[in-house]
Amino acid sequence: MRIPVIFTLNDAMPLLTLLTDFGERDVYVGVMKGAIAQINPALTIVDLTHQIPPQNLLAARFNVMNAYPYFPAGTVHVAVVDPGVGSQRRAIALELPSGFLVGPDNGIFSGILEREEAIAAVQLDNARYWRTPTPSATFHGRDIFAPVGAHLASGVPLREVGSTIALSSLLRLPLPACDRHDSGITGCVQYIDQFGNVVTNIPGEAVPSLSWSVIAGTASIPGKRTYADVDKGHPLALIGSHGWVEIAVSNGSAQNQLHLNWGDTVELVLT
Amino acid sequence: MRIPVIFTLNDAMPLLTLLTDFGERDVYVGVMKGAIAQINPALTIVDLTHQIPPQNLLAARFNVMNAYPYFPAGTVHVAVVDPGVGSQRRAIALELPSGFLVGPDNGIFSGILEREEAIAAVQLDNARYWRTPTPSATFHGRDIFAPVGAHLASGVPLREVGSTIALSSLLRLPLPACDRHDSGITGCVQYIDQFGNVVTNIPGEAVPSLSWSVIAGTASIPGKRTYADVDKGHPLALIGSHGWVEIAVSNGSAQNQLHLNWGDTVELVLT
Amino acid sequence: MRIPVIFTLNDAMPLLTLLTDFGERDVYVGVMKGAIAQINPALTIVDLTHQIPPQNLLAARFNVMNAYPYFPAGTVHVAVVDPGVGSQRRAIALELPSGFLVGPDNGIFSGILEREEAIAAVQLDNARYWRTPTPSATFHGRDIFAPVGAHLASGVPLREVGSTIALSSLLRLPLPACDRHDSGITGCVQYIDQFGNVVTNIPGEAVPSLSWSVIAGTASIPGKRTYADVDKGHPLALIGSHGWVEIAVSNGSAQNQLHLNWGDTVELVLT
Repeated sequence: MRIPVIFTLNDAMPLLTLLTDFGERDVYVGVMKGAIAQINPALTIVDLTHQIPPQNLLAARFNVMNAYPYFPAGTVHVAVVDPGVGSQRRAIALELPSGFLVGPDNGIFSGILEREEAIAAVQLDNARYWRTPTPSATFHGRDIFAPVGAHLASGVPLREVGSTIALSSLLRLPLPACDRHDSGITGCVQYIDQFGNVVTNIPGEAVPSLSWSVIAGTASIPGKRTYADVDKGHPLALIGSHGWVEIAVSNGSAQNQLHLNWGDTVELVLT
Repeated sequence: MRIPVIFTLNDAMPLLTLLTDFGERDVYVGVMKGAIAQINPALTIVDLTHQIPPQNLLAARFNVMNAYPYFPAGTVHVAVVDPGVGSQRRAIALELPSGFLVGPDNGIFSGILEREEAIAAVQLDNARYWRTPTPSATFHGRDIFAPVGAHLASGVPLREVGSTIALSSLLRLPLPACDRHDSGITGCVQYIDQFGNVVTNIPGEAVPSLSWSVIAGTASIPGKRTYADVDKGHPLALIGSHGWVEIAVSNGSAQNQLHLNWGDTVELVLT
Repeated sequence: MRIPVIFTLNDAMPLLTLLTDFGERDVYVGVMKGAIAQINPALTIVDLTHQIPPQNLLAARFNVMNAYPYFPAGTVHVAVVDPGVGSQRRAIALELPSGFLVGPDNGIFSGILEREEAIAAVQLDNARYWRTPTPSATFHGRDIFAPVGAHLASGVPLREVGSTIALSSLLRLPLPACDRHDSGITGCVQYIDQFGNVVTNIPGEAVPSLSWSVIAGTASIPGKRTYADVDKGHPLALIGSHGWVEIAVSNGSAQNQLHLNWGDTVELVLT
């Protein structure tokens, strides 16, 4: 009944995080956790989210990028939004100064790689670290990504789990760059959260402490510090908690009230 | 890569619970767990719920109150439903005989405090225990509440994390009191759960073992012991699992069938 | 404040999984975890799902059956979809070669028992292992099933938690058997997942590597290896990750596009 402990007392195990578009109604995520526990039952698993809209790589890219900085060094992040599962897309793992990334080579980690350079990347071609040498054609999360993540979190070195590949060969998923000009910055909507808060790709550092506003569609939205600075139902722009310029409506949905969509152009105006 | 262990072998770490209205589609909750793990990766975190309707303090008050008694002594409960984040509302932590409470001073813990007296309260003004001395104006869950909770669960004494404040100064969120009279008890609807079960504020101890019923709107609902005591689709009153008189419909929604709402008056009748 | 550790260093604790129809908006699941932690705060709990459609035993049966093989030996699975709570239905625990099962005797574990024979079964009549000798009439998950599961995961032997009952007395919930004939196999829809993927009860081993198709309603759906083998919006049949023949639509819902329902007859055709 008892399983022998496989870690030594002086080590704290790194964490392993999971981000998927599997939802929580079926047992897909539970099964990934079982596969991890079969390798190392002592690992601590943190769910980032399993409600990425199906196959939405931009949403996955945004969420894993924003969660990454808040975890201890050495944390292993397994992210599985994988429209190309079973096709020729590569399965990869990356080592960075602050942690490991495991998932498909489809740009899901682009946002992290724009901020922190990877140390090394491998293609997951060593079946010894998979759950089975004959993985399902549709569920690499269970059979490849989660097992490899569990081995990395248990101390297996990156070079063991696959063959080295060039960092330059990794598929990227770039956003339109922000355009700085005399009167402000032109950017775009990179994410809309479940409450209808609209996140731009303009970094908060670009915002002066003086007065500013954001033009989105036909609306001009005043820059503020927090939701409580406007009356309920009124729009405001603020530097959101992830560090991006964000458009919100106090107690409401900016997406609905201002009719904004992913990719829309927005304009930061310094006044 | 490995982090030195910061607890001694003879201690079991207290648990830390989280209750928020952040939902589970974005990584807000995951990021709070990262912030906790950066302080103490060995803590066990239990999610109470993250689906409190946005900014619904009555729902938060009800749920944290009902979960509280079922956790081991010393558990730290972090509850973040915080419409006033970034305004002048205080951030607080409380020590009680059975555990610690961390969150905004907006009445979220009122229900617990009606049942168990606090030992001490502090205002969270010691930035040494925050994630950063310059917290986000909109995400105190990540920058203040979760970090302080992690420190308390790791053994930091309450008086360290802030300045003592008077228990009498805490903001309360009282429900209408139940009115006992000759023919029964007048109370109100204090919560409706996701299945449409309608929970009153009449305590189960008030119900005799003899026959009883509940009047709600124009309906008279017979008191029973369990769902199986009526046919499917029929209403019943029972003492719910949290100890309150509750109105339910077997295999259905009492809220929809009986048109009941939060705050509605209900009448317990002893027959 | 500190709780004495109740396990020895050389043991890794078995896992405990939870599967319910309690949803995640209320604190029912959180309270079960509190009840477990009151018995053994060091146990690792894995959520399989809490979004089984209310009282849908076929969905519960399917999900716990498919998760079971992916967990380490000795894992304790607590499953609570329990329309008969408070009635005369028995509460049971089973020991199998690969783990323990705890829940109501309503067929929820039938799928597992069709694949692996139980070693022993007990009726949970030893109140010493309940949370309280006077359990709630409506929440055996908190008062009986979770506590018994926690004790089993902590090393209490099966025979301690209740009286032995005959394996033949367990309530079963059988599916229609698959009918093999000359031109193929007749089966049925045993599950539809949250994405509209339609899972039949035809085992993947029955599918030859040669060409095959599935007839469902008036549609003939070609057998393929993975989603990427057809264009977006087109239907395909494949061996799903759980090992059953499954009908899917690439980037869409097979349930909606093909108008399929639970229990519908499907036909595997070898061509």
